[in-house]
Amino acid sequence: MYSAGDVRVETVPDTRLIEPTDALVVVTRAAICGSDLWPYKSMEPSETGHRMGHEFIGVVEAVGSDVRTVKVGDLVVAPFLWSDGTCVFCREGLHTSCLHGGRYGQDGVDGGQGEAVRVPQADGTLVVLPVGKDDALMPSLLTLSDVMATGHHAALSAEVVPGKTVAVVGDGAVGLCGVIAARRLGADRIILLGRHPDRIAIARKFGAMDIVSERGEEAVERVRELTNGFGAHSVLECVGLGQATVTALSIVRPGGAVGRVGVPQEESIPHAVQTFFNNVTIAGGPAPARAYIEELLPDVLEGRIEPGRVFDRVVRLDGVPDGYKAMNEREAIKVIVRP
Amino acid sequence: MYSAGDVRVETVPDTRLIEPTDALVVVTRAAICGSDLWPYKSMEPSETGHRMGHEFIGVVEAVGSDVRTVKVGDLVVAPFLWSDGTCVFCREGLHTSCLHGGRYGQDGVDGGQGEAVRVPQADGTLVVLPVGKDDALMPSLLTLSDVMATGHHAALSAEVVPGKTVAVVGDGAVGLCGVIAARRLGADRIILLGRHPDRIAIARKFGAMDIVSERGEEAVERVRELTNGFGAHSVLECVGLGQATVTALSIVRPGGAVGRVGVPQEESIPHAVQTFFNNVTIAGGPAPARAYIEELLPDVLEGRIEPGRVFDRVVRLDGVPDGYKAMNEREAIKVIVRP
Repeated sequence: MYSAGDVRVETVPDTRLIEPTDALVVVTRAAICGSDLWPYKSMEPSETGHRMGHEFIGVVEAVGSDVRTVKVGDLVVAPFLWSDGTCVFCREGLHTSCLHGGRYGQDGVDGGQGEAVRVPQADGTLVVLPVGKDDALMPSLLTLSDVMATGHHAALSAEVVPGKTVAVVGDGAVGLCGVIAARRLGADRIILLGRHPDRIAIARKFGAMDIVSERGEEAVERVRELTNGFGAHSVLECVGLGQATVTALSIVRPGGAVGRVGVPQEESIPHAVQTFFNNVTIAGGPAPARAYIEELLPDVLEGRIEPGRVFDRVVRLDGVPDGYKAMNEREAIKVIVRP
Repeated sequence: MYSAGDVRVETVPDTRLIEPTDALVVVTRAAICGSDLWPYKSMEPSETGHRMGHEFIGVVEAVGSDVRTVKVGDLVVAPFLWSDGTCVFCREGLHTSCLHGGRYGQDGVDGGQGEAVRVPQADGTLVVLPVGKDDALMPSLLTLSDVMATGHHAALSAEVVPGKTVAVVGDGAVGLCGVIAARRLGADRIILLGRHPDRIAIARKFGAMDIVSERGEEAVERVRELTNGFGAHSVLECVGLGQATVTALSIVRPGGAVGRVGVPQEESIPHAVQTFFNNVTIAGGPAPARAYIEELLPDVLEGRIEPGRVFDRVVRLDGVPDGYKAMNEREAIKVIVRP
């Protein structure tokens, strides 16, 4: 990506192993993320451009001499950040704060929307998938790299437990995965705040029981009506924009929790006083996908959850710029890339 | 209180039972709260004035016909809000959001800094104390009405569990009780951020191991130095001012939690982005003291905790204005009132 709206497909030098902890992964499936749309909308022009993409599955082509847990030929899924798996934060399951981790597409690390990626800290990062590289489960497995893990993180952060009423703010791919996660954790009732019929249809399949398509104060009123005037125990904030945050904080029940996974587009969190007097918990952040893959993988493999339904368009590498455009214009929910 | 700085002791008509769920309590001990200092600093002039005080112990003089759990002659402690004990929120332990509860000093309910109080919803509010009205434990028992419960709430909201490093922002009575609470919950290390020698001395007795007397960015640096650069797992925000909130959010470790019990003096919570990327949890609010009294009472009765040490001045009713002045000028940490 060279600037807002300017995504190009270019031939670059082949990537190669550098550190003994690296693995070289030939990408078989990648995705475009809702968070990729933030720079797509607003990136300052760059001479060199940025490598894009942080969600991918691929086949290991080579490993460094220190790599132990993945081997050449393995099909692996990469969480959206790489991490060493051994530092104090990784050991606590907070791989997103890894002391020796980082992002794809930065500091000499390739982006996932390409043919191959040098994955640093391969042992701490990659998870081997026990299926073939063209298995029908590929879309759902690919969501473990980010959106399904993120929906799960939103639900955990919002303290979803059996019997609770859950509201999901946002009908993007993460919000839809939040619906799956809330249902999977035993939510009694799931309210989706969204207004796109195609997404709402998927949300209903995933377990959303009520849809609130109003916005702003009207949406708040509608959720209150649906919840005896109290609001939802757990609110999953899956957008990040100021208005969505205000809504999320306004529809949470006293004593409830807001799990925020939409990257905040504002420097402060509103409603400091109201949330205080209501004893509202505000939690969340980037999902430690690496920690969640092992928990969610059996449910995907055994078909209990189908997060891959959030993909509604497939492009080849040369179609990635169109994929960005389609997602940005809301013609597609989420785009899968087959290099 | 008639306006900022203007506290008067006046003779008012005797209070009396109104509802069948009321109890009439003759106050034997009351306290001035740090939160009483907010209006003391800034209250707009009022023709009628406001009744003050929400922390008290007293003897039940009369009960309404529906009252079952307290009887005439009982010594009782009142949490700082009254609550019915039966609504959906009270049953969850969130008495501060009681559907039929309220505050002292409002809507025809007396304030605690007086001779007697009509306590609404007596069954849901009052807790009988198994000691005599002049027992030496009175100061510590009185803290259960607010400050000790609030310190406990800060610690629970900040997710203090055994082995954690805890930072307490603020050396007021609540912060000092936060130190007690953190130690009681098994904190491995307790860092107090405060700068008043008398308060620091008490904090050390309560279990604070490190004192940070710097402010602002210097305080943040100092806490980082003390915690391997990571920050504290649990931060108890016991002030409420903007700078204290910034500090609290800046010294919490990735994956950690800030328990806020200082009434927020700003309309928004800063550091929305930083706390997001660090997966920081922000929780807390007014403490459901009624829920905590039963948990904390045995520890007070058996001398395992001594929160009453936060009181360092005693006044009679006619000395209440001086008590406010002393607390406001930081000549006293917390004032006990003996009507």
